[in-house]
Amino acid sequence: MEIKKVKRSEDYSAWYNNLVKNADLAEHSDVKGCMVIKPYGYAIWEKMQAELDRRFKETGHQNAYFPLFIPKSFFTKEASHVDGFAKECAVVTHYRLKVDEVTKEIVVDPDAKLEEELIVRPTSETIIWNTYRSWIQSYRDLPILINQWANVVRWEMRTRLFLRTTEFLWQEGHTAHATAEEAIIETKQMLDIYADFAENILAIPVIKGIKSANERFAGAVETYCIEGLMQDGKALQMGTSHFLGQNFAKAFDVKYVTRENVKEYVWATSWGVSTRLMGALIMSHSDDEGLVLPPRLAPIQVVIIPIFKKAEEKILVLEHANSYAGLLKKQGISVKVDDRDYQSPGFKFAEHELKGVPVRIAIGPRDVQNGTVEVARRDTKEKMIMDATDLEHKIPHLLEQIQINIYQRALDYRSEHLFTVDTWEEFLDALDNKTGFVSAHWDGTSETEENIKEKSKATIRCIPLNNHQEDGKCILTGKPSTQRVLFARAY
Amino acid sequence: MEIKKVKRSEDYSAWYNNLVKNADLAEHSDVKGCMVIKPYGYAIWEKMQAELDRRFKETGHQNAYFPLFIPKSFFTKEASHVDGFAKECAVVTHYRLKVDEVTKEIVVDPDAKLEEELIVRPTSETIIWNTYRSWIQSYRDLPILINQWANVVRWEMRTRLFLRTTEFLWQEGHTAHATAEEAIIETKQMLDIYADFAENILAIPVIKGIKSANERFAGAVETYCIEGLMQDGKALQMGTSHFLGQNFAKAFDVKYVTRENVKEYVWATSWGVSTRLMGALIMSHSDDEGLVLPPRLAPIQVVIIPIFKKAEEKILVLEHANSYAGLLKKQGISVKVDDRDYQSPGFKFAEHELKGVPVRIAIGPRDVQNGTVEVARRDTKEKMIMDATDLEHKIPHLLEQIQINIYQRALDYRSEHLFTVDTWEEFLDALDNKTGFVSAHWDGTSETEENIKEKSKATIRCIPLNNHQEDGKCILTGKPSTQRVLFARAY
Repeated sequence: MEIKKVKRSEDYSAWYNNLVKNADLAEHSDVKGCMVIKPYGYAIWEKMQAELDRRFKETGHQNAYFPLFIPKSFFTKEASHVDGFAKECAVVTHYRLKVDEVTKEIVVDPDAKLEEELIVRPTSETIIWNTYRSWIQSYRDLPILINQWANVVRWEMRTRLFLRTTEFLWQEGHTAHATAEEAIIETKQMLDIYADFAENILAIPVIKGIKSANERFAGAVETYCIEGLMQDGKALQMGTSHFLGQNFAKAFDVKYVTRENVKEYVWATSWGVSTRLMGALIMSHSDDEGLVLPPRLAPIQVVIIPIFKKAEEKILVLEHANSYAGLLKKQGISVKVDDRDYQSPGFKFAEHELKGVPVRIAIGPRDVQNGTVEVARRDTKEKMIMDATDLEHKIPHLLEQIQINIYQRALDYRSEHLFTVDTWEEFLDALDNKTGFVSAHWDGTSETEENIKEKSKATIRCIPLNNHQEDGKCILTGKPSTQRVLFARAY
Repeated sequence: MEIKKVKRSEDYSAWYNNLVKNADLAEHSDVKGCMVIKPYGYAIWEKMQAELDRRFKETGHQNAYFPLFIPKSFFTKEASHVDGFAKECAVVTHYRLKVDEVTKEIVVDPDAKLEEELIVRPTSETIIWNTYRSWIQSYRDLPILINQWANVVRWEMRTRLFLRTTEFLWQEGHTAHATAEEAIIETKQMLDIYADFAENILAIPVIKGIKSANERFAGAVETYCIEGLMQDGKALQMGTSHFLGQNFAKAFDVKYVTRENVKEYVWATSWGVSTRLMGALIMSHSDDEGLVLPPRLAPIQVVIIPIFKKAEEKILVLEHANSYAGLLKKQGISVKVDDRDYQSPGFKFAEHELKGVPVRIAIGPRDVQNGTVEVARRDTKEKMIMDATDLEHKIPHLLEQIQINIYQRALDYRSEHLFTVDTWEEFLDALDNKTGFVSAHWDGTSETEENIKEKSKATIRCIPLNNHQEDGKCILTGKPSTQRVLFARAY
């Protein structure tokens, strides 16, 4: 393993790319824009999936699966949706290859052209609402609370592993309700679930808010979001939950008979998070030595490294290492004893540091004699000597402490990078020199939002929920404003 | 719900289609050849996934994710693979749509034509072995034991829900080994895992064997399979495990340095099962009243139906129903109290029968008085009165009994439909009149196999593992044969 290390302060972007590669999380494939998620990266994604899936099911949602392909005509049914999604996409035009009789090469068979092209789903509102039409007749069929775990494709010219790839993995919830109120409650409930997951599992503090019209999902009435702040002061949208009104019900003619025997259009929500969260996780906590993982997501929470020289030491040390591992496993902790004999302890220390294993336990012959071990925390790099008899009750506690500390560190960082400004100069200074979220007055028009974006590269990340109302002047136009909104440069 | 019931004896195929639809398992989508897996069907698939995934991980495999798209040229690298897979497939030729300036319709943008077409994966050997080339240098990088849960696409003209669809869900394992021996052991291990899963979870007895050359996976040296027998006497291939030799390593130039410092090609296996297993599950156990589910796969294992007329009865009965449900949940049983007040008990009985819930508990005011409940088994339709105090320890036991009984019934059916024949007339009689597996001598040539298939529509399902060797004469050609093989008409 040749590891080229780049410091965050030198080149944040190169640091990120190197880390993703060196920690064995993912890599670019030979298919343009598509990534390979490697086993270690995928194991973290699986832990995210399990936590989310449990929360979805606890709130009454069920999983289902809808087709990968969407007929082109479906996209034209919801006017604003088509502009947002039917542009950069993978188009299936043929269903057969054949051997060319002259060149003997494999070519697309021109006789196998589809009558109507199929789009590889960039999101599934259209195919799902086309299906819901036959599922929904009466108020008794509502609500429908469905989630799908799937791959989606949005053609991207410039890609970054996890953050922006042509194909990515995600979940997309699609619910149908009898009333607007119920759909709005659902939209907010899912936002809360995302925020809870982000803060308690990913250990990333997030700001909940709604998007401005410019940044709204194509086809939504209102888009709610959670926004996190990365260590380079740039924001990352970590999840969205959309109140879709009756837009898709009208586009696909989905009506239900009410208790009062009246036919009405159904109300909808959709909500999703993706493998992009892997990028958020990496950029929120990791350091120049590598990945830092919150214990609740770490595929390996504790690594035990035996240290020995002579053969008889090896037997003794390994015996103790395995016995401690057994004790910790009984506490529900995932433990690995790294007993590879062709790598030095120093190599192993560096590797597990790179991979973000929260706790490292080293044990040598002298430790065995003393009944102790050396315990090292990945987050603070503190080392301590611990009595082996204390492992069982102290390690679970330590893992909890690490989870809390990682969150607190990210929260402190965000608090230090949240600026309130009143002038354009202060605004640019905050973005250019301080970096982070900038709370500022805006006159509420899309035009001004566009102008601010053009001049500063910052976008409105959200209008925070329960935002304080106060009179002020737009930082760009000086026009009156009733509230501050949150700007940032973003991924 | 209008339910059109068809008996198996009348029209097996219509019975199957009706059942899949009426039990809410899946339906055809408006995208040709693609299905929608509905929540109830998907919940069963999730249970299958969890059981398989656990077995894969216990044997050292890790999950990962590789791209959906495969460049066309990758398929041409392994000569026999291209014939098998690069024919009927979805071809992505463009990456953008646009609004036509004249018609204002959405059309494929001719300027966004891909230089090289992308194939939506029908199976991932090529993209994965292209990736393994950079992952494998030394014997220390081996074995690689990876599995992927994914969707795949094989263009089908005639589709059946679950059994044959253009898009389906599956898992595909792809492993790399230093020696042929190790790869063969892996191939057989995965076959054993599939067989264990089929018998102990799906409750379907299977025959393990190897495929004849004609039926071998395109690119494999040897294909191992498990074959089940459906209630109409047709066989269904339920899973395959392939020893790929060095074919893909050579095609994608994947070599490793041995302990002896020599460069050698890597040995490979691949293995998979798909949502086809849902079809096997349905066709093995279900009856004219609907689905019959083995308890280990049932999303709802026990349904409790409260029966009452007056309002005060309702309170009393529901209170008891919920309390019994709580007791059973503590035993790890998944229980649903069906307290819908707009459906009659009779309707509920029929619905849960249709959906294959293994145990139904009915409770009315008199039961409350007597401290009893009525317990009905879905598999045998037996009813019994049970003391409520016995529920806690008797129901888990009953669920186990049902699991065993369903398996035994399928095993008995298969035993009664496994025929040994020595002449062509007996062979046709067994296929046409008795239906099932037919064990017969075959001269070992692909030509004869083809002729038998043409004349009888039966194929060689497998050469059973550890097959008895005996001299005989081929049923078609009369040429000498050293062993019987297993024929059947198949899905």
